[in-house]
Amino acid sequence: MSEATEPRAKARLYVAAPLAAGAVALLTPDQAHYASRVMRLGVGDRLSLFNGRDGEWRARVKTVGRKGGEAVVEERARPPAAEPDAILLFAPLKKSALDVLVAKATELGASDLRPVLTRRTAVARVNVERLRAQAIEAAEQCERLTVPDVRPMETLERALGAWEGTRRLFVADETGGGVAAADAFSAAPRARPVGFLVGPEGGFERSELDALGRLPFVTRVALGPRILRAETAAFVLLACWQALAGDGRAPPPPRA
Amino acid sequence: MSEATEPRAKARLYVAAPLAAGAVALLTPDQAHYASRVMRLGVGDRLSLFNGRDGEWRARVKTVGRKGGEAVVEERARPPAAEPDAILLFAPLKKSALDVLVAKATELGASDLRPVLTRRTAVARVNVERLRAQAIEAAEQCERLTVPDVRPMETLERALGAWEGTRRLFVADETGGGVAAADAFSAAPRARPVGFLVGPEGGFERSELDALGRLPFVTRVALGPRILRAETAAFVLLACWQALAGDGRAPPPPRA
Repeated sequence: MSEATEPRAKARLYVAAPLAAGAVALLTPDQAHYASRVMRLGVGDRLSLFNGRDGEWRARVKTVGRKGGEAVVEERARPPAAEPDAILLFAPLKKSALDVLVAKATELGASDLRPVLTRRTAVARVNVERLRAQAIEAAEQCERLTVPDVRPMETLERALGAWEGTRRLFVADETGGGVAAADAFSAAPRARPVGFLVGPEGGFERSELDALGRLPFVTRVALGPRILRAETAAFVLLACWQALAGDGRAPPPPRA
Repeated sequence: MSEATEPRAKARLYVAAPLAAGAVALLTPDQAHYASRVMRLGVGDRLSLFNGRDGEWRARVKTVGRKGGEAVVEERARPPAAEPDAILLFAPLKKSALDVLVAKATELGASDLRPVLTRRTAVARVNVERLRAQAIEAAEQCERLTVPDVRPMETLERALGAWEGTRRLFVADETGGGVAAADAFSAAPRARPVGFLVGPEGGFERSELDALGRLPFVTRVALGPRILRAETAAFVLLACWQALAGDGRAPPPPRA
């Protein structure tokens, strides 16, 4: 057990390619830089790879340079496993808040990150590729087997119009008009597909919140006496749902 | 009710002075800059003040300039109220992670922020004044009536040696060796003084974690299958405790 708290310092990288014994996976220039310069890995050194489908695999660096690298896949370290189906809809935020939101929502197990345009959304554009890269980096570090799916921005109306009626949508209601998080999530069936929605920095318009409350699949959630920033509201929804109705009782992955 | 979701754009500032009708409160140069340049307030405009003791008060700008300003206190908007007694002990982190930790822990209602030196703490110094300023800014924005008390760094041993035996200390155990957060906090008595401890980026040493587990006031908490960054572990502990055993069922403050 003494190795049980060794720092998890090994490089763990997300790749697109299928993973199987003997396969060669390409590393992007950024990954090669990270592996060689940050993690100080050279040819023959070990790293872990995952692709969101085939679990996690042990691999060794075959080549590494400024233009990228290659790793040879050796054996499977973790089989693929079901992960929570938890979509986060969020009004895009200013850059620093959005960076934190994407990284933390990934750590907290969101399966999909979907920027939505609400009436008071002040940020009209989202760099989806940047969000994807941040989600990948967070997934690599938190030892998820998948990377959240990041969608291009759409209007909230459109997202709600196409919503599956069986997927409960928990909406952060900063007016305090909803059910307390502990009650909402204690009563929620476990490990079922869910969604979460947090509004923009200026909050929802009253008419928007009223319309949300009339949708049969929506539960408005109150988040206590402090006025949370949008990204913090997303963390509270995800953290409390995971603890009470998600995978919060599952153990951490075995140490590699 | 139509104003209920108006953006909370008003300036809300923390001041040191006693607050009472007719009192004059001094604004620091930073606060005066924020009031005049960011919030576009001029002489006679309204703002809110709090000092951690006297509740929240309506006030008006009396003077505002580059060297500071003054506000005249008018009437009380919110009486003082009890807030959770929830100490967060944390190994200091790199700057960007520490900034996020302090801001979010303040939003999530930590009463005390106490940096502690653990065996693997990589960051040996903490700028306490900087943390205080960040805690104040977060408290101003999340509408708390208090500002977390920020202490200078001490060793973990010293903090534990002086710990009150009646205050339960929930320790984030990244090895998965503890009680699931939902179970730990569902079983916790409500609104009692508590503490939380999160380790450094490299985790606790095994011997450190074992020693923590032997302390009668410690509960080790498992945080699910993903390996959370230290600041994220702090959010999960605070968010889940507040929801289940803290003030998560309290309403947000009335709109000013």
